[in-house]
Amino acid sequence: MVQPLRIALAGLGTVGAGVIRLLDTNASLIAARAGRPIEVVAVCARDRSKDRGVDLSRYIWEDDMTALAARDDVDVVVELVGGSDGSALTLARRALGNGRGLVTANKAMMAHHGMELAAAAEEARVALKFEAAVAGGIPVIKGLREGAAANAVLRIYGILNGTCNYILSTMEDTGRDFGDVLKEAQALGYAEADPTFDIEGVDAAHKLALLASIAFDSRVDFSAMEVEGISRIRAADIAQAAALGYVIRLIGLADCDGGLFQRVQPCLVPRDHPLASVDGPTNAVVLEGNFCGRLLFQGAGAGDGPTASAVVADLIDIARGDAGPPFSMPVAALQPLERAGSGHRLARSYLRFTVADRPGVLAEISAAMRDAGVSIESLIQQGRPEENGEVLVVMVTHEGPESAVTRALELLDGSPSLTEAPLVMRLLG
Amino acid sequence: MVQPLRIALAGLGTVGAGVIRLLDTNASLIAARAGRPIEVVAVCARDRSKDRGVDLSRYIWEDDMTALAARDDVDVVVELVGGSDGSALTLARRALGNGRGLVTANKAMMAHHGMELAAAAEEARVALKFEAAVAGGIPVIKGLREGAAANAVLRIYGILNGTCNYILSTMEDTGRDFGDVLKEAQALGYAEADPTFDIEGVDAAHKLALLASIAFDSRVDFSAMEVEGISRIRAADIAQAAALGYVIRLIGLADCDGGLFQRVQPCLVPRDHPLASVDGPTNAVVLEGNFCGRLLFQGAGAGDGPTASAVVADLIDIARGDAGPPFSMPVAALQPLERAGSGHRLARSYLRFTVADRPGVLAEISAAMRDAGVSIESLIQQGRPEENGEVLVVMVTHEGPESAVTRALELLDGSPSLTEAPLVMRLLG
Repeated sequence: MVQPLRIALAGLGTVGAGVIRLLDTNASLIAARAGRPIEVVAVCARDRSKDRGVDLSRYIWEDDMTALAARDDVDVVVELVGGSDGSALTLARRALGNGRGLVTANKAMMAHHGMELAAAAEEARVALKFEAAVAGGIPVIKGLREGAAANAVLRIYGILNGTCNYILSTMEDTGRDFGDVLKEAQALGYAEADPTFDIEGVDAAHKLALLASIAFDSRVDFSAMEVEGISRIRAADIAQAAALGYVIRLIGLADCDGGLFQRVQPCLVPRDHPLASVDGPTNAVVLEGNFCGRLLFQGAGAGDGPTASAVVADLIDIARGDAGPPFSMPVAALQPLERAGSGHRLARSYLRFTVADRPGVLAEISAAMRDAGVSIESLIQQGRPEENGEVLVVMVTHEGPESAVTRALELLDGSPSLTEAPLVMRLLG
Repeated sequence: MVQPLRIALAGLGTVGAGVIRLLDTNASLIAARAGRPIEVVAVCARDRSKDRGVDLSRYIWEDDMTALAARDDVDVVVELVGGSDGSALTLARRALGNGRGLVTANKAMMAHHGMELAAAAEEARVALKFEAAVAGGIPVIKGLREGAAANAVLRIYGILNGTCNYILSTMEDTGRDFGDVLKEAQALGYAEADPTFDIEGVDAAHKLALLASIAFDSRVDFSAMEVEGISRIRAADIAQAAALGYVIRLIGLADCDGGLFQRVQPCLVPRDHPLASVDGPTNAVVLEGNFCGRLLFQGAGAGDGPTASAVVADLIDIARGDAGPPFSMPVAALQPLERAGSGHRLARSYLRFTVADRPGVLAEISAAMRDAGVSIESLIQQGRPEENGEVLVVMVTHEGPESAVTRALELLDGSPSLTEAPLVMRLLG
């Protein structure tokens, strides 16, 4: 007699309801592939009376998450509560502490507490899996941790936030400005009422921290992340990038060369690069390995169906017997890598200055570039002022150390010619 | 004390040497990720004296593959000999029969004998893995078997042969004809001296048969495959497709709707489809699942580094303890699906007629289309005859059943107006 894998589900938002719908819809197929049925035993959420479109009467309802994590008729707890701390973290700790496996879609919690939770899972010899935490339905954690496991990873980068990608690609298609498109994205459900985590790059950074750890066998280090969002990008930047043959995408990139480098930043992506054609809320991750070369994984980065697909894939892995270390190797073997400085990095940079429309401004900027040793490849001064009378000056540098650009901006710091801080983006090489 | 995973390697061509080079280069990283070292114990190939650029003196040399498969100091045999039958198959059977795991890059053997070998592996409770058999370094077997395991797969399709893709994309870039580009591909090492298996679609069909089995939980059925290669495609077809907004790619596609449908055929791919920008020897696979939506996996489809990466990923999986069924579920549970007929399938078709340059030909073709109920969306008659005085007539049909097109071609069969059999391609929808 085959034992089912018994699940407790905490959090019944769109993803939680999606997991139940998926387990119902594909039940026989999942049982055959997993070698045994996957059965929900108990559920827990804030509001018992809310209609979620799925039949919950079959399950034990727990009002208390602590009780859920303590049930002895459960093999794996699925945490879909969200939030880096608070009840999600308490639940995760209790579940692992009680010797239950844990599957989570919680990128914030894993980015901040992944090492502690992985150590607890290893101690308890149970599974901790988080495919759904990164890039929705794309099996990129698996692709990296297992599919590319034979490789030293040279770098990993990609489009990790569907909200930003929707906004940027819509700005590109329509010529509209950031605030306008953000409002539309909110109306369409592509952006949260409070979009800060998405548009300021924090969500992408959470995901990148997890990918970087697996890629470089390093401890998750969210605090060492450079993060910059997309809220300062104007329609004019998109237009200038287009004129130069580029599109703008929010890129999370990590590499490891004398230290761990992790950065989320809007970048100019050449139009013939695979990431340039990634539109709307799609995610895509590129992995460069020393033997496999460049691998690309692309798909839906969010949504109840794709995220549920990743959650249940983790459950199937566990049902099949997988209980290896949650990251690329046991936590004790992961390196606490130094944070790599970015000053010596070579890059071509896009610089956009917002200046007052008066003589001498261009000379001032050019002099700062010269004095800092920044070599300019092309310069565009926008002919027509913006609505408020500002003029935009855009330049693209030759490849050079990032520190030189930083130095040039320091020289210009406080200049009355600049009406706001310059915007700096890198060209994806 | 951790036991190493002990390997015997049969076949020391470029991939075999690549596996040794990879295991050397990334040894410590692999041991840490796999939880134990992966050690080559013995090797076997035809010519002991040949210089392969790697140090073989460390290993036991076996002249006889049977002896290799019988060694009791080996956990897993890696088969890189090639060929659907013969010594590769003998080795695979012996290794599994002796209770050794098997890792293979041999798509032909797996397409023809995968069910027998998987049953033998399950019987012996050892692993049989073949990631390297499909799409080189891209972890698409894993992505499908595990990453998308929660989904009913709606269809799977992709670019599975790098040689064909190199030839087609080079024809596209240069306007040159098939034979000319094939010769160049041979000179560059992108095509074999005897390129038949590649250019006639057989290699892609081997891979598609394996993907289809995993996607649809069906027995591998290579005999039910429709296969058509690229050797009849002319520069003029590429140019006409481009004028219509398409590129031509050799696509392997499988779906399952009242039966298993598997077809390898050159197709017209819309220029904004992710597969249209896959150039050169790259492979890419698209998987559409009922919850994950559309996933794309892309990377190097061949070469010693990428293929070695896939072989060693399988070895790491085995070292970590994975010994699940080789396909999506145990062989006994896989369905022997009926072959689906293609007549009722709806498609837009590209038809190219090579005709004698004389009056009435177009009327004859048009009448056949009308009589068969084929609705023509656009028609292009090439103004300038080909070198031999032939004229090309190209038409694209509205969506309709494939059987209608077949009927129209039957009506035209034997017509003295046609100087060769018409070329039919489908538009990827």
